[in-house]
Amino acid sequence: MPLPNCETLLLNLEAGVLQVTLSRPDNRNAMSLAMVDELRAVLAAVHGDLSVRAIVLRGAGGHFCAGGDIKDMASARASGADAYRTLNRAFGSLLEQAQHTPQVLIAVLEGAVLGGGLGLACVCDIAIARQDARFGLPETSLGILPAQIAPFVVARIGLTQTRRLALTAARFDGSEAERLGLVHFSEPDDAALEARLQQVLSQVRQCAPQANAATKALLLASENAALGPLLDSAAEQFAAAVTGAEGVEGTLAFMQKRAPKWAE
Amino acid sequence: MPLPNCETLLLNLEAGVLQVTLSRPDNRNAMSLAMVDELRAVLAAVHGDLSVRAIVLRGAGGHFCAGGDIKDMASARASGADAYRTLNRAFGSLLEQAQHTPQVLIAVLEGAVLGGGLGLACVCDIAIARQDARFGLPETSLGILPAQIAPFVVARIGLTQTRRLALTAARFDGSEAERLGLVHFSEPDDAALEARLQQVLSQVRQCAPQANAATKALLLASENAALGPLLDSAAEQFAAAVTGAEGVEGTLAFMQKRAPKWAE
Amino acid sequence: MPLPNCETLLLNLEAGVLQVTLSRPDNRNAMSLAMVDELRAVLAAVHGDLSVRAIVLRGAGGHFCAGGDIKDMASARASGADAYRTLNRAFGSLLEQAQHTPQVLIAVLEGAVLGGGLGLACVCDIAIARQDARFGLPETSLGILPAQIAPFVVARIGLTQTRRLALTAARFDGSEAERLGLVHFSEPDDAALEARLQQVLSQVRQCAPQANAATKALLLASENAALGPLLDSAAEQFAAAVTGAEGVEGTLAFMQKRAPKWAE
Repeated sequence: MPLPNCETLLLNLEAGVLQVTLSRPDNRNAMSLAMVDELRAVLAAVHGDLSVRAIVLRGAGGHFCAGGDIKDMASARASGADAYRTLNRAFGSLLEQAQHTPQVLIAVLEGAVLGGGLGLACVCDIAIARQDARFGLPETSLGILPAQIAPFVVARIGLTQTRRLALTAARFDGSEAERLGLVHFSEPDDAALEARLQQVLSQVRQCAPQANAATKALLLASENAALGPLLDSAAEQFAAAVTGAEGVEGTLAFMQKRAPKWAE
Repeated sequence: MPLPNCETLLLNLEAGVLQVTLSRPDNRNAMSLAMVDELRAVLAAVHGDLSVRAIVLRGAGGHFCAGGDIKDMASARASGADAYRTLNRAFGSLLEQAQHTPQVLIAVLEGAVLGGGLGLACVCDIAIARQDARFGLPETSLGILPAQIAPFVVARIGLTQTRRLALTAARFDGSEAERLGLVHFSEPDDAALEARLQQVLSQVRQCAPQANAATKALLLASENAALGPLLDSAAEQFAAAVTGAEGVEGTLAFMQKRAPKWAE
Repeated sequence: MPLPNCETLLLNLEAGVLQVTLSRPDNRNAMSLAMVDELRAVLAAVHGDLSVRAIVLRGAGGHFCAGGDIKDMASARASGADAYRTLNRAFGSLLEQAQHTPQVLIAVLEGAVLGGGLGLACVCDIAIARQDARFGLPETSLGILPAQIAPFVVARIGLTQTRRLALTAARFDGSEAERLGLVHFSEPDDAALEARLQQVLSQVRQCAPQANAATKALLLASENAALGPLLDSAAEQFAAAVTGAEGVEGTLAFMQKRAPKWAE
């Protein structure tokens, strides 16, 4: 399935890494319904293609994403409450889909990381922020709710921290986001941000694509599944992996003290 | 519903903030059954009144709360094991009720924050400690269990940290409580503690009361509910909020670059 | 039940503390099926004996455990995929059993703490690492999965950190393990490591054995059980504890300002 044509996203697939740049810089990449639909189409297009090893999400023009789009909100207002419901739920569906993307999803966060932008960061496997990025959940200060976002923030950083952030609309920077466990790294400038991204991509390339996809699914399942059956199923997957092409190549490469094929 | 008369609590409602001071200073505010009942009555009295924007819990005389009351324990001993069960479960019911208080619940923690006092801190939306406050779960060192408290501590700081604290009865200070995520802020002295409280209250006032109450309920639900149905319900709530009085006022205030009414 | 004879473990029971040393130093204590079986037998042997107050797990020769054993893997390969499944699941059964050990389980971590070794650290009540210990989940870089380990790592440090570690196979040291909450303490050298262990053991001895076992079971249950029924059951256990031998002794010792019998 080829990559879809996009109006709100810039796409660049190179060396197994798909760069997806939110590109509505005049609106600090506010998340419009069109952008939601295009992100979903892109993730669907690459879903079965593990030659894409990682997907890097970032924003154009110095911001990641400032939240929901005001114009979409205005046109939903014209159409009534049901349009709001649909608009809102669509964003939650994007987050669900992104959470379960088989590839490694990496966020590069700078400038505004607000509302829906923060939600999107919360479903990435690895998040790298500039120390001066500005995070926050401003919704309740606008009289509305971080409705689709809230459960993903709780899953990301726990109830204790989320309740303070959501009920005060407090802003915080990338260093604090790292301390809270929302991001994995915070970096002082663009050069360090880029160097960290390259380090992470290099680590991801050391890991076998199918093994990574299966491991990610297992990690996500372990938040809800009963432990015993999960371990039974994991043992089956282990046996399949170790006797499969990646397991054979990985073992052989290890014994021959060379890099496995997927890491070349 | 007017505020109840209390023997063990000092109450002060001013500018939308209800100050609740545990006041049994001769016993380091040990949690008696009377205090449990009065706290429950106070929370029930304000439950439906969102003109109360925040509830601040603190202790009189330099301590927050040193745990369960020895005299209650002695009289339960006279009445037999069933009296212990009832006494213990009542405290758990207080924690359940406090956890789901629609207002923003804030703890100001100094001196002893032990046993039940620590449990109470764990259901507050925002907890601010003096760095020299003394936290701990001493129960097992007394041959008893942190029975009602334990699940709330696990929900607050996770199993990993709770198991060490509960199985060693180790004491720790406010700085460590912040590092563990039990409190959100730790401050060096009373002036800083008070300044932090005022900053937090000021942030809470920026947030719409109904939006905050709905968001808090959503956050609490997200720990247990299945994700898909939760997001469906959240989208309905989003539509109701954005078309409701707070959403209309919030959007208007944003466009008019003024503070919304609830923040005046 | 006497302690079993072990080929892969060194056992030493003294003053209520059972030291269990993984002892296959030529293989950096790689976890063979024999070692899994022996660990399970040891835990089963002491399960009902609360005169054993703590179990200390460590490794011989400067390493904790470098993961699964290569020779077992090779012989499983000869026997087919089903042998892999059985081998893998056995390790998960060990982790389940260790997680629910009634005694306080303490890990002393140095050198390699990789794969299954990291998994074993994740079920310990208290984990103490040397700062220069080397942690990691290398599985996906070998084309296989951290199948039995993954759910325990998620339970230990949360999904957010686990997904990065598992999908990059990144190595990290003891200081980082402390920051991530995988271990409780990281120490600069052997003397500090030993001092910390003695401090922790001394704290554990202050706590009543049955109270600790009941508390640990309650903490583990609270991750899955519905809150209301759990609190009901906890109240019953509280009443039983406070009227039982430990509760009576603990209360008496407290009033008489002496150490309780279990702390002597």
